[in-house]
Amino acid sequence: MKVIEGGVCAAAGFYAGACHCGIRKSIKKNDLAVIASEVMCNAAATYTTNRVKASPLLLTKEHLADGMAKAVIVNSGNANACAPDGMENAKREAAAAAGFLGIDADDIVVASTGVIGQRLTVECIEEHVKDITMKQGIAGSEEAAWAIMTTDTQPKTVAVEFEADGHICHIGGICKGSGMIHPNMGTMLSFVTTDCAISSEMLEKALKQDVKKTYNRVTVDGDTSTNDMCVVLANGLAGNPQITEESAAYAAFAEALHFVNETLAKKIAADGEGATRLMTCTVKGAKDEATAEVLAKSICSSSLVKAAMFGADANWGRVLCAMGYSGAEFDIADVTVTFLSAAGQIVVYDHSVVLDFDEDLAKKILSEPDVEILVELAEGDGNVSCWGCDLTYDYVKINGDYRT
Amino acid sequence: MKVIEGGVCAAAGFYAGACHCGIRKSIKKNDLAVIASEVMCNAAATYTTNRVKASPLLLTKEHLADGMAKAVIVNSGNANACAPDGMENAKREAAAAAGFLGIDADDIVVASTGVIGQRLTVECIEEHVKDITMKQGIAGSEEAAWAIMTTDTQPKTVAVEFEADGHICHIGGICKGSGMIHPNMGTMLSFVTTDCAISSEMLEKALKQDVKKTYNRVTVDGDTSTNDMCVVLANGLAGNPQITEESAAYAAFAEALHFVNETLAKKIAADGEGATRLMTCTVKGAKDEATAEVLAKSICSSSLVKAAMFGADANWGRVLCAMGYSGAEFDIADVTVTFLSAAGQIVVYDHSVVLDFDEDLAKKILSEPDVEILVELAEGDGNVSCWGCDLTYDYVKINGDYRT
Repeated sequence: MKVIEGGVCAAAGFYAGACHCGIRKSIKKNDLAVIASEVMCNAAATYTTNRVKASPLLLTKEHLADGMAKAVIVNSGNANACAPDGMENAKREAAAAAGFLGIDADDIVVASTGVIGQRLTVECIEEHVKDITMKQGIAGSEEAAWAIMTTDTQPKTVAVEFEADGHICHIGGICKGSGMIHPNMGTMLSFVTTDCAISSEMLEKALKQDVKKTYNRVTVDGDTSTNDMCVVLANGLAGNPQITEESAAYAAFAEALHFVNETLAKKIAADGEGATRLMTCTVKGAKDEATAEVLAKSICSSSLVKAAMFGADANWGRVLCAMGYSGAEFDIADVTVTFLSAAGQIVVYDHSVVLDFDEDLAKKILSEPDVEILVELAEGDGNVSCWGCDLTYDYVKINGDYRT
Repeated sequence: MKVIEGGVCAAAGFYAGACHCGIRKSIKKNDLAVIASEVMCNAAATYTTNRVKASPLLLTKEHLADGMAKAVIVNSGNANACAPDGMENAKREAAAAAGFLGIDADDIVVASTGVIGQRLTVECIEEHVKDITMKQGIAGSEEAAWAIMTTDTQPKTVAVEFEADGHICHIGGICKGSGMIHPNMGTMLSFVTTDCAISSEMLEKALKQDVKKTYNRVTVDGDTSTNDMCVVLANGLAGNPQITEESAAYAAFAEALHFVNETLAKKIAADGEGATRLMTCTVKGAKDEATAEVLAKSICSSSLVKAAMFGADANWGRVLCAMGYSGAEFDIADVTVTFLSAAGQIVVYDHSVVLDFDEDLAKKILSEPDVEILVELAEGDGNVSCWGCDLTYDYVKINGDYRT
């Protein structure tokens, strides 16, 4: 497996492009993107668990019922959730993409992100989708990655090359994250494409399993959005024999998919609204993986831990506290807490004994942009990492006045 | 029932006092308080559900096993949780109070609040507890209320007078809240005293039921502390026949206790860390009370809703979103959302139809210090209010660097 350029257009036969159609009036940032494959794709998706689901998501579910899709249209600036004429406008958005690409509307994935509860001005999508120029490779991917951003500060993209049954395959993706991010599926928009030949069933299996270990282990603010979706399109142009069972080729595909998803998930955490640093919370030695996950998520979600990270404050008591109220079972008499980063590592609580530690070193370690909180238990082999970010003034600022 | 002065010393035979013993070195704020009754009390308490429990709380559980207590000692500045010599120091703190008051250490409730994981400097408690002058009425109550504050900005106190079997009784309390506040029992330190004669069993029953509808419906930041406890002491000096069953007198007592607890709970929410306003989230017409509570708590806990409140932004889409991911069942096709305050009220989402509303009026309503989000469903008679506060720059500031 090798990291390559090209993002969502790294795989053969995928194109992308974007334009400013005018959903966002205040700033002239592109707000409409299209990603398309030359040929029909097998497709799989996972969606938000929020009971309130946006219209485009409901429409996409219908379109993917046959496990096939050929393109994605996605707008930022308006979520088309709880909005007047929601389903009608999602259908019009799909029809606009279908007309532009000359394909069936049934083969279009529709996604939206932005403010909830306002009518989508679908007319400007219908008028301007034709302004898009579809491009190959990194150029197309970058355009789409920028267009789907809301309060994200940077585009999120990754791609790798891998081998399946002797054929070189490519898989890559783009995503957006930022606010309303919490581990409960979806938690963002993520579009992944591959030229690997794989059946819809195996694609869905690989995606469902992997989402649990990647996107669902990211939290920014505990709010699970109405619009989250992760879609994978596989067009088979790499020419490998189609993967239809759990073969070595499937394992190679699953590994590559995992790398792409984990990389995108971490980028979402690092670019959480207002974040100044990526916070990885790792729990090792819990009695099982489920316990490790509950503990790691609880630490990663704690407002007090997140605020302490912002202040580069080695407040390990809050880590213990967050473990304690998580609901998970663990032995409080044998807990070791270590803070790590590129600047070094420091044990602050050693087998449940409070240590006198070097506060200056701790501050230095916690001031890095990529910080890990490592909790070690001695009860089993449950090891899990979750990703989040610090809680900052800017989070409050961004969300105190988002609509206006 | 009539609101009166006197707080935790409103009931006959209760005294309180405080001193600066030196746990907090940086500022000379009182950090040690004692509350005591002239005569032995029946006692009941509820505690944090956090798996990590502070030593004073574990000791208090032991001391209250017989349903009796005579006094409370409480320090701020150090939680004595996950701390070296925790249990030993909690016992020394109890012994210090016992020596000062000339009573058994077994009859002492010990409570601590402050930073986790640092050794309690119990020596300064032992040395300075004798500096306390015990006072009656509002003077004693105010001293204790100030001494237990951490990042609270104001003392929290209330008292009422009620009648039980023809005898005038008094009940009142003090509490502290601020950070690490979330509905999951305890969620603060609260000390309530009454001169009403009531058995330990009935006292415990009344407290356990009421805590669910008061303190457990408050959230500030989703972090449930290691130290939370609510203690009620009843010394019987009002002279009423002891309440031993669910009589009319019990109902009067329960009503008065509820008023005290609800008032204190709302004061905790309003004075949440960094808060600029009290946010009441009310759900009416849910299919049952449990559903209403899950929905109201989810709205009240949402970082995005809380940040919108800070910005006085009528972002009702976030209210819907928080309901959607709460896990509760409700009909998304019939939801009405109204914002209310002293400045008026405005319906923004009417039976799931988006309304064009007056943004200026909405801003005015949401700029008040006491704001309510009312969600109306049409599925049953589940009605619940929860209390929280907005998420502000100051929350981040306070918690970014709490230890130093």
